[in-house]
Amino acid sequence: MNVSIINIGDELLIGQVVNSNASTMSRMLIAAGMDVKEVAVIGDDGDAIRNTLCRCLAATDAVLITGGLGPTKDDITKTILCNFFHSHLVENQTALENVKRLFAIRGFELTPVNRAQALVPECCQVLNNDLGTAPCMWFDADNGKVVVSMPGVPFEMEWLMQNRVVPQLQEHFHTDHIINKNLLVQGIGESFFSDLVEPWELALPKCIRLAYLPQAGMLKLRLTARGNDRQALQNAIDKAVEQLYPIAGQYIAGEDCETLAELAHKLLTSKGKTLATAESCTGGTIASQLTALAGASRYFRGGVVAYSNEVKECALGVQHSTLEQYGAVSEQTVREMAEGVRERFDSDYAIATTGIAGPDGGTPTKPVGTVWIAVASRTHTEAALLNFPGRRRQQNIERSVNQALAMLIKAIAN
Amino acid sequence: MNVSIINIGDELLIGQVVNSNASTMSRMLIAAGMDVKEVAVIGDDGDAIRNTLCRCLAATDAVLITGGLGPTKDDITKTILCNFFHSHLVENQTALENVKRLFAIRGFELTPVNRAQALVPECCQVLNNDLGTAPCMWFDADNGKVVVSMPGVPFEMEWLMQNRVVPQLQEHFHTDHIINKNLLVQGIGESFFSDLVEPWELALPKCIRLAYLPQAGMLKLRLTARGNDRQALQNAIDKAVEQLYPIAGQYIAGEDCETLAELAHKLLTSKGKTLATAESCTGGTIASQLTALAGASRYFRGGVVAYSNEVKECALGVQHSTLEQYGAVSEQTVREMAEGVRERFDSDYAIATTGIAGPDGGTPTKPVGTVWIAVASRTHTEAALLNFPGRRRQQNIERSVNQALAMLIKAIAN
Repeated sequence: MNVSIINIGDELLIGQVVNSNASTMSRMLIAAGMDVKEVAVIGDDGDAIRNTLCRCLAATDAVLITGGLGPTKDDITKTILCNFFHSHLVENQTALENVKRLFAIRGFELTPVNRAQALVPECCQVLNNDLGTAPCMWFDADNGKVVVSMPGVPFEMEWLMQNRVVPQLQEHFHTDHIINKNLLVQGIGESFFSDLVEPWELALPKCIRLAYLPQAGMLKLRLTARGNDRQALQNAIDKAVEQLYPIAGQYIAGEDCETLAELAHKLLTSKGKTLATAESCTGGTIASQLTALAGASRYFRGGVVAYSNEVKECALGVQHSTLEQYGAVSEQTVREMAEGVRERFDSDYAIATTGIAGPDGGTPTKPVGTVWIAVASRTHTEAALLNFPGRRRQQNIERSVNQALAMLIKAIAN
Repeated sequence: MNVSIINIGDELLIGQVVNSNASTMSRMLIAAGMDVKEVAVIGDDGDAIRNTLCRCLAATDAVLITGGLGPTKDDITKTILCNFFHSHLVENQTALENVKRLFAIRGFELTPVNRAQALVPECCQVLNNDLGTAPCMWFDADNGKVVVSMPGVPFEMEWLMQNRVVPQLQEHFHTDHIINKNLLVQGIGESFFSDLVEPWELALPKCIRLAYLPQAGMLKLRLTARGNDRQALQNAIDKAVEQLYPIAGQYIAGEDCETLAELAHKLLTSKGKTLATAESCTGGTIASQLTALAGASRYFRGGVVAYSNEVKECALGVQHSTLEQYGAVSEQTVREMAEGVRERFDSDYAIATTGIAGPDGGTPTKPVGTVWIAVASRTHTEAALLNFPGRRRQQNIERSVNQALAMLIKAIAN
C-alpha cells in the first residue's frame, strides 16, 4: 500500500517555512507499514492542486493533503476538493460543534467566517480535529483509493495523523502489523558499526528490516518487523535485540528514544537523580535541549555557560593557575568545571564542555574541533578528549552535545 | 521566469531527514526574482526521476535537482540525466582536479570509486563545486530551458546556488534586478502592524512588493524591489524605509538581519559591549542562539541557567526573602537575576527570564505562559511581564527568547 503527500501553501513554496510536515508524515506512515512514493509541494493554486491530485491519485493508493483549509480567501483546498469529487458544501454538525467548542474555550464570539469552517463537501467523512477549527476530510475515491485533507498547522496535523488518519488507513487497507524498535548507538562510526554487526544483520529473520539513521555524532538504529502475527513479530524483535547486546552492547546508549537528550531526561527522571551543566563551547545547548522537554525541572538544577575565563573562575571555581598553566581547553579545566558546578549546584551529576567550535580560534596544538568533555558524579569524574575533523561550528557544537550526553548516560547506567 | 525543484533521496522520502534544501533554494530563487512553481521530493528511483523531470521541464523554464550524486550504487541521478540527454559519460578535467584537490586536503588516497565522481555526461557544463567531490552539472535543454543537478549536501548546495547556479540562471534568463530589504518588527501583532502601516503600504511604488514573515513573537518585513534599473530600485527602497520610520519606527528592532539573535550579535560586536544571561524558563536557549554565531566570544561573557531556586540564590545572588515573598516568577526575582548576573559576570548588559513555559506548572494567579523578562545595564534595569496564551512549551520558550532579545536590542540602541 503506497501513499503520496501533497503539501499546499505559498509559504512553503517560497521557502518562508521549512516543510517539516512532509518528514513528520513520512515517518508516521513508514512506521505504520506504508510506503511513501512522492511528496509534492505546491502553492495555493487551483490548477496545481487539481493536476497534482489527479496525478498522485493515479499513481498511489492514498493521497494525503495538508494545507489551504484556513478561513481566508487564499485557502482554496476545500472548494477544489468539492469540485473534484462533484459534491457540494454542506454544514457538518460534528465540525460545527467542534468549532463552537474551541471558540467557547478561547472566549471568542463565533463569526460567520469561522462558522464557514464547518462547511464540508457532502460526500466526505469528517474526522474530528480536536485541536483546531479546520476539519479533517476523508474522501473515498474510485477503486478503493482514498484522499485525506488535513490542516497544515504542524501540531494539528500530527495529532490527526496519530489519532485519526493512520488508524483509519490501516483499517481501510488491511495493512500488516508493524513493530518498530529504536536503539541509540554512540561512540562508533556508522561503517565500523555496520562491519561489527554484519553477521548479526545477515542472520536477522526476513520479517525484520534494519535502518541506519545517522545524526551528529550518533546513530539511530531502527528495527522494523512486519507481518500478520503481532506476537510473533514482537518475539522476533526481542530476540534480535537480545542477540545484539553481546556483540555491540558497549555502543548502545539506550532504547526507545529519538534523541540522547530524551534518553538522559528519562533516565534522570526515573532514577530520581539531579543534574547541573557547565558549558563553554556548547554555549547552553545541552541545557536548552534538556529544558525543552516538559518535566526537566524535576532533575535539572541549572547550569553555567562559562564563555569567558573569568566566568569559569568566578561561577565554577576553576583555579586561576589551572587556566594559566593548561589553558581553557584542557583536561584539567574541564574536570574543575564539572566538579565545580556539581558542588556549587549540589547535583548528583554534572556535565562540562570546553573546546574550539570554529570556524576560527584554533592553534597548532589545539586546532578547531578540539573539545574536552567531563562528567562528574558524587564520587568520580570522567574526562574525554575529542578531535572533530570539520570546521563547521554548528556541527561541532551538536557533536559535542551528543558526546557529552552519551557520557552522562553511561555514567548514570553504571 | 519560473523554476521547479526536484529533491531526490530515499532519506527525504522516508522522513529520516527534514528537507531543508527546498526552502533554502526557494528563498534564494525568490530573492533573485524567480518564481518557484513546484517542489517534488522523490526517491532514488530511475522511473520517478525521469517522469518527474519530464513533467517539470514541460511546466517550467528551469529544473533544479538535488541529490543522488554520491559515489555509491544507490546514487543514480547522473546516469539517468546522461540517458535523458542522450549523452555518454566522460572524465571531466575540471571535476577531476577538484576531486584530487579535496582528497589531497583531507590526506586520503584517491580510489577508483572517488575518481568516478569526475565522470559527467559529455553534453553538460560542469560548475565547479569548491566544497565537495560531487560535480554540479548544467544542461541546456530545448527552447532555452535549463536543467541543473547539484549534490544534496546542504552546505555544498547552498554554496553552489549562491556562487554558481543563481548567477548563471540570472544571466541566462536575463532576469530583472532584485533588491531585498529586511526589517525586524517586534512588540506588535501582525494584524495591528498591518493596519498601522496600511496607508504607507498602499502608497508604495509599483516596483516594490511587501511580504510579512511572522516568526515566534516577531515579524520579518521584507521589501522586494524588482526592475531593470538597479540604482532606481535602491532609491525606491531607501525612500520607502525612510518613510516607514515616522509611522512605525518604535516597532522596528533592526534592519538587514534574519533573526533577533543575529541583530543582537551584530550590535554588541559593533558597539564593543559585553553581555551575560540569567535564564530560567528559556533554559539556556538565549545563550545557545547567541553562541551558535561565530564570534560570540567577543561579547558574551557567559550565563547561568537558573532552573532551581537554590541556583537563583547561590549563582545569581537572588535573595531568599525575595523568592519567599514574591515567588520565582515575579518582577522582583527577575530584576535580581539580571542585576546579579551582570554584576557577577561584570558585563555591560544582562538579560534575565523567569516564567512558566508549560504545558503544566501553572497556578490560578500565574497560569502557563506567564513570563517575566528583565534587561539590566550598568545604570538601569527594565522589566516586563508577558502573558502568552498557549500552553505549548517550545512556542512559549521561543517567544520569550525573542521578547528578551528585542528588549536587549532596544536597551543597547537607547
